[in-house]
Amino acid sequence: MHGWRAFCCQFAVAVMVGTPVSPLAPAAFPVMPAVGGLRLATAAAGIRYQGRDDVMLAELSPGSTVAGTFTRSLCTAAPVDWCKDALAASGGRGRAIIVNSGNANAFTGAAGYRVAEHTAGSVAGALGAQPYEVMVASTGVIAEDLPVERIDAALPSLVAGLSAPDPQAWEAAAAAIGTTDTFPKAASAPVDGTGAHVAGIAKGSGMIAPDMATMLAFVFTDLAVDPLTAQECLASSVEKSFNRVTVDSDTSTSDTVILAATGSSGRSAGLHTAYFREALDAVTLDLAHQIVRDGEGATKFVAVTVTGAADDAAADAIARAVADSPLVKTALAASDANWGRIVAAVGKAGQRADRDRLSIWIGDEQCAEGGIPHPGYSEETAIEHLLGDEIELRVDVGVGDGEATIWTCDLTHGYIDINAGYRT
Amino acid sequence: MHGWRAFCCQFAVAVMVGTPVSPLAPAAFPVMPAVGGLRLATAAAGIRYQGRDDVMLAELSPGSTVAGTFTRSLCTAAPVDWCKDALAASGGRGRAIIVNSGNANAFTGAAGYRVAEHTAGSVAGALGAQPYEVMVASTGVIAEDLPVERIDAALPSLVAGLSAPDPQAWEAAAAAIGTTDTFPKAASAPVDGTGAHVAGIAKGSGMIAPDMATMLAFVFTDLAVDPLTAQECLASSVEKSFNRVTVDSDTSTSDTVILAATGSSGRSAGLHTAYFREALDAVTLDLAHQIVRDGEGATKFVAVTVTGAADDAAADAIARAVADSPLVKTALAASDANWGRIVAAVGKAGQRADRDRLSIWIGDEQCAEGGIPHPGYSEETAIEHLLGDEIELRVDVGVGDGEATIWTCDLTHGYIDINAGYRT
Repeated sequence: MHGWRAFCCQFAVAVMVGTPVSPLAPAAFPVMPAVGGLRLATAAAGIRYQGRDDVMLAELSPGSTVAGTFTRSLCTAAPVDWCKDALAASGGRGRAIIVNSGNANAFTGAAGYRVAEHTAGSVAGALGAQPYEVMVASTGVIAEDLPVERIDAALPSLVAGLSAPDPQAWEAAAAAIGTTDTFPKAASAPVDGTGAHVAGIAKGSGMIAPDMATMLAFVFTDLAVDPLTAQECLASSVEKSFNRVTVDSDTSTSDTVILAATGSSGRSAGLHTAYFREALDAVTLDLAHQIVRDGEGATKFVAVTVTGAADDAAADAIARAVADSPLVKTALAASDANWGRIVAAVGKAGQRADRDRLSIWIGDEQCAEGGIPHPGYSEETAIEHLLGDEIELRVDVGVGDGEATIWTCDLTHGYIDINAGYRT
Repeated sequence: MHGWRAFCCQFAVAVMVGTPVSPLAPAAFPVMPAVGGLRLATAAAGIRYQGRDDVMLAELSPGSTVAGTFTRSLCTAAPVDWCKDALAASGGRGRAIIVNSGNANAFTGAAGYRVAEHTAGSVAGALGAQPYEVMVASTGVIAEDLPVERIDAALPSLVAGLSAPDPQAWEAAAAAIGTTDTFPKAASAPVDGTGAHVAGIAKGSGMIAPDMATMLAFVFTDLAVDPLTAQECLASSVEKSFNRVTVDSDTSTSDTVILAATGSSGRSAGLHTAYFREALDAVTLDLAHQIVRDGEGATKFVAVTVTGAADDAAADAIARAVADSPLVKTALAASDANWGRIVAAVGKAGQRADRDRLSIWIGDEQCAEGGIPHPGYSEETAIEHLLGDEIELRVDVGVGDGEATIWTCDLTHGYIDINAGYRT
């Protein structure tokens, strides 16, 4: 249809067969555990992409709980609205998650909501559940009607294909939900002392051309977790992971993270909630970092840590200002120890900082101290750190005890290539 | 010293002889009026650049008033601190403005302030004024000591060269304060019914590599304007001009706008204040637009207008979110009518908007209406508009009467080239 879309499709397909993969990608897809009470299936519904699976169904055993966190965008996509309504109606009980790639069902008005509702109804019918027990997520082009009949048509083979998630099934599920992702994303962690696991998949690599794209993550556990605890643990975990990464400061209309707890391990979070949190936090942080590692055009994985701020919220705002600064990001792309740009970003964050107490580190090398260049600063040592692909920047703003870390990537020609390709 | 700096110097010099000039630059330097009571001079002090003037002195006749607005950065450069102190001490009276390019005197601690103070003292001594009657501005590399002795050495020839500003003197002054600007910037307007003029020069093209750069503007009038009126008119004018443009969302530590009123026309603002405001607003807006037209890598001049917001501040925030979105800016670079990215930017602005009342125009072509694609939308017509180099985007968010326009440019490979060149 358009050169761009053709490119996009081709790329997404290429991705799924393994090339061109981000230079920051993990060496291999991780070995993923079985999670009792969960069955996965994927299918090729041909919604937009050809020659690849584009629908993923996760079935949860009866009695499972679900929790969700969603984009803060005020222009939410229809599936986000559906999930919020469904969670309210079910009180946090769920039986399935259905996800399609290729079409985001966003900016589709009231008709878009009916499509999400219809999809939930079809899945519920096939699995003997209630529509409001089905979470729906969509990612891909916007402002085009989602051809819901193609999901309906794929549903019988999806249901027939449901199986306990072996490593291959996890990878197929992670691949099916991807758009221009260059590698499928998954992570897991055991919940200490319970024999249960937390395991999840995610997609996202910035807001992806030619359309709005999206960060989606689906995290599962075979622990029993009551709905309130699940929602609280998820919200807290997302705050420390997905909400602390930024590729290009742009927010999707469709961002969705769903936690599903099947309880099939026979163990309940209860007394183990602290261990559950630990495992959940490890999984969400790992997935969030993988999204940054697949950032459009990224060649550096960057941690920006701010200490000494008025409070943690101030530290967060300053770290974000540094992480989102195009000037900082282009300097990182060039391995340029241009820490003056960090000073500027701190200054524009609008948070209390004392210019004359400001200290800055690139890796372990201190560039500035007390508002002037550090006397022992070696630009060579700083550049040596910047030539690697795992970068640490630290700023102490000298006014309090607030701390925060934001993860981001550099800004390169690759980002422009991906996002400014000519469609016509 | 570094490849980057060598490049930067070469570029800056090349700029001043006219190449490579931004494709959005005006056809020629404007014809500028004489402004009574003002004398200008430039000199080559060799602060960093070689083979070009890098110091500009503006002398104001006795009794002149000055007003200033400065960066909101919390990490201000020393000259900004000096100007604020001097304005407070003088009550808004001034006799001179001294500006150097090549070194920003920023992140230089207490020593940096003493340098700014010393510079003001030297100029004051040469002109028979008080130090606090001298405004100082610096732009260029940061975190390096400004070699103030070079300004001192250039001062006698500066003072000897002071002359009423003919067109050549205006252009020389605009060029001397530039760094990586690709063309010198000036604008003027008559004050209706007075015979007086407002005339100004500016520099800036984003925060310029390899250092923090800066937006500086110096605006003069031969009307008499009392200090309070001058400050109030300037603040209001800056709010509608320089504070409504964005190249890359980055804020300099040194941004400075000075208004100087000599009164030598024998006419006072007084009853003519409305006309004075009109002329001042025209000059600041023209200069602000010229800065966007010299945006790093810019190939499109873009006006983003938001209507129907809860109030003007909300409209401003939404327009900024669109104008600063890397995804919108890269789409514009590609003449890609990807208005889904505008929806996403509106959604992330955090201001009240009704997704189901959202309407979007590219030029005169309506893309979306009431939260869904407009039935008569022609992508071809939208692209035709985007292929030009003057772009208008409009969003109506459907909740109130708030309006705002923000001016910006596109995000291209040129921006990455300029900001991510390897220094080593």
